Amino acid sequence: MSLLRARPATTPAMLDVWSDAAALGHALAFEAALAGAEARHGLVGEAEARAIAATCSSIRIDPAALAEEAALAGTLAIPLVARLRAAVGGDAASHVHRGATSQDLADTVMMQQVRAAAALIQADTHRIAEALGRTARAEAAHPAMGRTLLQDAMPIGFGLRVAQWRAGIAGAAARLAREVEAGAVLQFGGAVGSRAGLNGRGAAVARDLAAALALPPAPPWHARRGGVAAIGTAVAILIGACAKMARDVALMAQNGIGEAREPAVTGRGGSSAMAHKRNPTACQIALSAATRAPGLAAGLLAGLPAEGERGLGGWQAEAPALADLFLLAAGAADAMAGVAEGLEIDGAAIARNLPLDRSPADIGESVALVDALLGVGD
Amino acid sequence: MSLLRARPATTPAMLDVWSDAAALGHALAFEAALAGAEARHGLVGEAEARAIAATCSSIRIDPAALAEEAALAGTLAIPLVARLRAAVGGDAASHVHRGATSQDLADTVMMQQVRAAAALIQADTHRIAEALGRTARAEAAHPAMGRTLLQDAMPIGFGLRVAQWRAGIAGAAARLAREVEAGAVLQFGGAVGSRAGLNGRGAAVARDLAAALALPPAPPWHARRGGVAAIGTAVAILIGACAKMARDVALMAQNGIGEAREPAVTGRGGSSAMAHKRNPTACQIALSAATRAPGLAAGLLAGLPAEGERGLGGWQAEAPALADLFLLAAGAADAMAGVAEGLEIDGAAIARNLPLDRSPADIGESVALVDALLGVGD
Amino acid sequence: MSLLRARPATTPAMLDVWSDAAALGHALAFEAALAGAEARHGLVGEAEARAIAATCSSIRIDPAALAEEAALAGTLAIPLVARLRAAVGGDAASHVHRGATSQDLADTVMMQQVRAAAALIQADTHRIAEALGRTARAEAAHPAMGRTLLQDAMPIGFGLRVAQWRAGIAGAAARLAREVEAGAVLQFGGAVGSRAGLNGRGAAVARDLAAALALPPAPPWHARRGGVAAIGTAVAILIGACAKMARDVALMAQNGIGEAREPAVTGRGGSSAMAHKRNPTACQIALSAATRAPGLAAGLLAGLPAEGERGLGGWQAEAPALADLFLLAAGAADAMAGVAEGLEIDGAAIARNLPLDRSPADIGESVALVDALLGVGD
Amino acid sequence: MSLLRARPATTPAMLDVWSDAAALGHALAFEAALAGAEARHGLVGEAEARAIAATCSSIRIDPAALAEEAALAGTLAIPLVARLRAAVGGDAASHVHRGATSQDLADTVMMQQVRAAAALIQADTHRIAEALGRTARAEAAHPAMGRTLLQDAMPIGFGLRVAQWRAGIAGAAARLAREVEAGAVLQFGGAVGSRAGLNGRGAAVARDLAAALALPPAPPWHARRGGVAAIGTAVAILIGACAKMARDVALMAQNGIGEAREPAVTGRGGSSAMAHKRNPTACQIALSAATRAPGLAAGLLAGLPAEGERGLGGWQAEAPALADLFLLAAGAADAMAGVAEGLEIDGAAIARNLPLDRSPADIGESVALVDALLGVGD
Repeated sequence: MSLLRARPATTPAMLDVWSDAAALGHALAFEAALAGAEARHGLVGEAEARAIAATCSSIRIDPAALAEEAALAGTLAIPLVARLRAAVGGDAASHVHRGATSQDLADTVMMQQVRAAAALIQADTHRIAEALGRTARAEAAHPAMGRTLLQDAMPIGFGLRVAQWRAGIAGAAARLAREVEAGAVLQFGGAVGSRAGLNGRGAAVARDLAAALALPPAPPWHARRGGVAAIGTAVAILIGACAKMARDVALMAQNGIGEAREPAVTGRGGSSAMAHKRNPTACQIALSAATRAPGLAAGLLAGLPAEGERGLGGWQAEAPALADLFLLAAGAADAMAGVAEGLEIDGAAIARNLPLDRSPADIGESVALVDALLGVGD
Repeated sequence: MSLLRARPATTPAMLDVWSDAAALGHALAFEAALAGAEARHGLVGEAEARAIAATCSSIRIDPAALAEEAALAGTLAIPLVARLRAAVGGDAASHVHRGATSQDLADTVMMQQVRAAAALIQADTHRIAEALGRTARAEAAHPAMGRTLLQDAMPIGFGLRVAQWRAGIAGAAARLAREVEAGAVLQFGGAVGSRAGLNGRGAAVARDLAAALALPPAPPWHARRGGVAAIGTAVAILIGACAKMARDVALMAQNGIGEAREPAVTGRGGSSAMAHKRNPTACQIALSAATRAPGLAAGLLAGLPAEGERGLGGWQAEAPALADLFLLAAGAADAMAGVAEGLEIDGAAIARNLPLDRSPADIGESVALVDALLGVGD
Repeated sequence: MSLLRARPATTPAMLDVWSDAAALGHALAFEAALAGAEARHGLVGEAEARAIAATCSSIRIDPAALAEEAALAGTLAIPLVARLRAAVGGDAASHVHRGATSQDLADTVMMQQVRAAAALIQADTHRIAEALGRTARAEAAHPAMGRTLLQDAMPIGFGLRVAQWRAGIAGAAARLAREVEAGAVLQFGGAVGSRAGLNGRGAAVARDLAAALALPPAPPWHARRGGVAAIGTAVAILIGACAKMARDVALMAQNGIGEAREPAVTGRGGSSAMAHKRNPTACQIALSAATRAPGLAAGLLAGLPAEGERGLGGWQAEAPALADLFLLAAGAADAMAGVAEGLEIDGAAIARNLPLDRSPADIGESVALVDALLGVGD
Repeated sequence: MSLLRARPATTPAMLDVWSDAAALGHALAFEAALAGAEARHGLVGEAEARAIAATCSSIRIDPAALAEEAALAGTLAIPLVARLRAAVGGDAASHVHRGATSQDLADTVMMQQVRAAAALIQADTHRIAEALGRTARAEAAHPAMGRTLLQDAMPIGFGLRVAQWRAGIAGAAARLAREVEAGAVLQFGGAVGSRAGLNGRGAAVARDLAAALALPPAPPWHARRGGVAAIGTAVAILIGACAKMARDVALMAQNGIGEAREPAVTGRGGSSAMAHKRNPTACQIALSAATRAPGLAAGLLAGLPAEGERGLGGWQAEAPALADLFLLAAGAADAMAGVAEGLEIDGAAIARNLPLDRSPADIGESVALVDALLGVGD
């Protein structure tokens, strides 16, 4: 609700994915596609389905007013369907939302947003993997101090550190893609998840509805939320992988170390009190996201023991947490994409931090490991 | 960013508290009061302070544009102060924000919002305590089945159950009030929390600034965030106490039990698929809040180990989590206030659920406990 | 540390997996296998490797004394290797643990425990899936009241509810199996994760070491912990899926509903105060596990932003959380296996709870959905 | 169950507090005191109460065997009371545990452990506050580089940083003391929390029982768990405050900074791979604790919405989480007490890190803030 709080942690594109306008668009697409699918199976007249679809295309709904009514009703579907029915009018009105329940609408909308969000994330993680892959190769044999428990330890190839970042992010992105593919599916089960009231055509309607919405079909999952939790935890792991890179860059950018820093961006990283400072603002975004993500993921896990055919309180808590996770992931991935593509490496500082008596050893193994790590996530 | 996601979980008044307009209002009040306090100590000219205050009163700032710039800068203060300086103009411009740092502004704004939010919560919890107190007294000697581990156990006085709800909520509200009083204090420390650059008048400026903003003064706490975490966890405990009441009401409203239900509210609790249903929508709000609150509180706790004089990523994660907690608490407390004031108790069902062989015993002790519990939170 | 706290939440077999004896066994197996692998690549003499292996087989170590020393040293490996070296004696002593670091040992031991733990879990979830599959088929066409938001809604086939439980648990078990296969791998990277000091034979030693320990080889992942987090969150999702079943059984076992209850087990579910009660103790185990699991998973996610080549504090927090998650999962899965195999279904109560005016409709769709759901997790 | 996992994170004294022996001792003390209090009110014969007390003093119980039975029964009280009754024998046997329920025993034992645990913590935080107070005063006017967002910023007095650590820890310790005093109280409510079956003497028995156990009396709180959650979150905040100090010490101990380090302790902080390293092992303990604490606290918050007069699954999840939090707090506080008392400050490194052009300014304000901060937590 507050752009001042939300925007610094994410990207405009991801804000759009989770906007009210996008949600309403997906909701209206659901209702139109549902009428269409039901028409193909004789449950709704063809003309009525066309009338419903036309209204879904043309209706203008004020999100603020709808939100007020949804707050009272306890679900978005009730006021939305009421408006749609009023706008459709005539006999067709009663066929709007036929055989569907509020949660069918809410979950399908959420999963459309998940797919759009995941696509944005994958674009950024692809940028990161490309850029870090190049750097890892270029720096594979460049000796640098390795550090464990925040203490200087033994030299590594600098590229090995970078290849580890890349492997962490690419691996997390691949997991997210798998979980989205498996879990971001159509929700269509009707009042109690049994697809009743559709003359035995429930499975066929679900299949056609899914096809129209470009979502995989699936049995109803109103009270079986493991797929949602798995998507959310996969996002949290990706945020953590971005934050690992951010932590390292911020540590290397410290004044006494100075081995690397995020790229200078005009207007970024200044201080309202100290003109001389250059703050690791991109790293801050990823680290801040990683501070919030574990708790948000915990919120998704907490809702799993749902009651009966549709729970009370658990699943209703998911959409805000899932949206927040994707918003934070977008901020973190976008920030790290910028850092990956513009990372400033200070070779002189790296050399200065390498004591002579701990000369680079076994760089060949580091190089070999870089090669092995570059395959992660493919 | 999404009213459709946010509004059903909270109240319009609490949305206002955490709105961009409110945040900007507090930010401008901070800058005006700072100039005024510094003028009293000879750090800023009187005329310049008046010019700054006048501009803070008259300036109009578009939150969306400011949010874009804040996202780039990594902090709200930088673009806000830049606009203020441009609007003030002349010599006075350079005195805007003197001796302050971005986090002074951000934290003070957050704590002004916390105090406003806590006041709203206390109003609702007061309503709850009043209404539940009345019901507990009225039902103290009314025998009803007590249940443990979701199984019928032995009779209690119905009022004892209600008095326990009240004690849980009143106790949590009292804790929240204590933590807000202790922790929602002025932040004013300058670049590194040492109040440098104020000619040795730092403490005096802080005292006057605090007075002007009606906040308690305090030493800087940029990297000492226990007070924020304590406020947030106190809110989470309050949400849990509301949800305990909600859980009981929803369980009693089950069709096979039927002992109590939330009041009928026109337009609330319907089903998009089943006209006959009356859903416990107010309970849903509180239970959904309680699903999310533990993880949000965990996010606040996670930021405690801040780096040096101001951390990287931890405290920046707090404001969204704190805002969410108060938004959820408002939704839960408002919902339970309505339930407390209109709870429908079905005496016939309560009697029906009491087997004859487990007749009400020791109601006197239940009545005595009601009395004892009604003192909790005072 | 407390059997009275730990045992009621888990199984003896899972306690054994995470016992000190098991950990020590894995640790000694690691050191023996390492010497053997290094001998194959000329880094350690064959005789010395045999001496090391013999000592690893024969040495007796007091876990309590070792724990004291590990607490001082900050790592288990230091006192363990010191004892091994002392016991091996002679020239061979200096070859113990060659090229390895403390975390190589700790992580490999943890992953051996993960694999043993996952195998136990899979056995229980297999039992659950079998038993619930039978029940779901048998009850597929048996009409029962469906409930949403804790209110009676419309009839479903009773088997559909059961098939949803099964799908949730089987799907979660399949995810866990995938993440264990991908993430429970050898850790072997040496001091800074570069496999230095092995004459360029690091990759070959890693491959042979992995084979000897029956773990997949992998590049070092000292500071790349996404695999650990993914295993832990998969366990948490499985716990949630068990708790969903438990929640439903406990709700159905309520005195006013009575449709199903967990099987009677001699000595289980009694009350210290009320002889007549039969508590849903198995459900309690799963629901209690699900109360704790989200926070434990959050703790794993919190450690992701590790510092440099080996972090300070994050990964050290993992083993206790991961152990707790598996211990809780074992308790939940074992409890639900018992419930699945002995679930008492009360057909008369189910019929009584079905109002005549909401007669069973579209049971055919419920039956079809049962079929579809029985394929989940395969 | 695993000393190797548990011991490095805590202290032997805290392990004792949460040991099975301690729990059994508290449990037997409860049963003895209960019989005694009931004897004073004519509910149990004096001779029988003496027999019960004598048996409680003399009985020897094997925790492992009891844990097995508790796991089956679902509660510790059932097998414990059965053994006690068998040992007491005769008419007195039936008076064991009169009017009490399993949770009365479990909660009272837990709170006795909480009080013992809190006393240990307060001793350590007192040591920390003393030692840091001395250092803060001694270093108040010693200029050192202040750092924000991990970048050098402006000079502060070194003592200001130390005074902030002290204030964070002392403030958190004071909050914990308050919450323990308010929440660690007697549990005594009987089967459904109504103190039935005691001839109207319930309140009086509770008062005497509380006095005998040196716990404050209170109305029953079986399903009102805000006090437990408040204790747990207060512990988590204290852990975070210790970890803030640990983070700073570890950052200052980095090789390129070198301004301070934890004291050298024989046998501590070594590396199994690198003899030259001195790892910040005490800091690791505190930081690792802070990684786990937020999730453990979230687990306590998650159990708040308990069902009816005693919940199913929520409160049963508390004791393990609360024990873990105190165990971690003990480890963190003990580690930081050692660091506080032996912190090695390198004045030359501090001076070297202060650029000439950012000479110490306004040290007087830093000194004044040290004074102000030294009052926090008193």
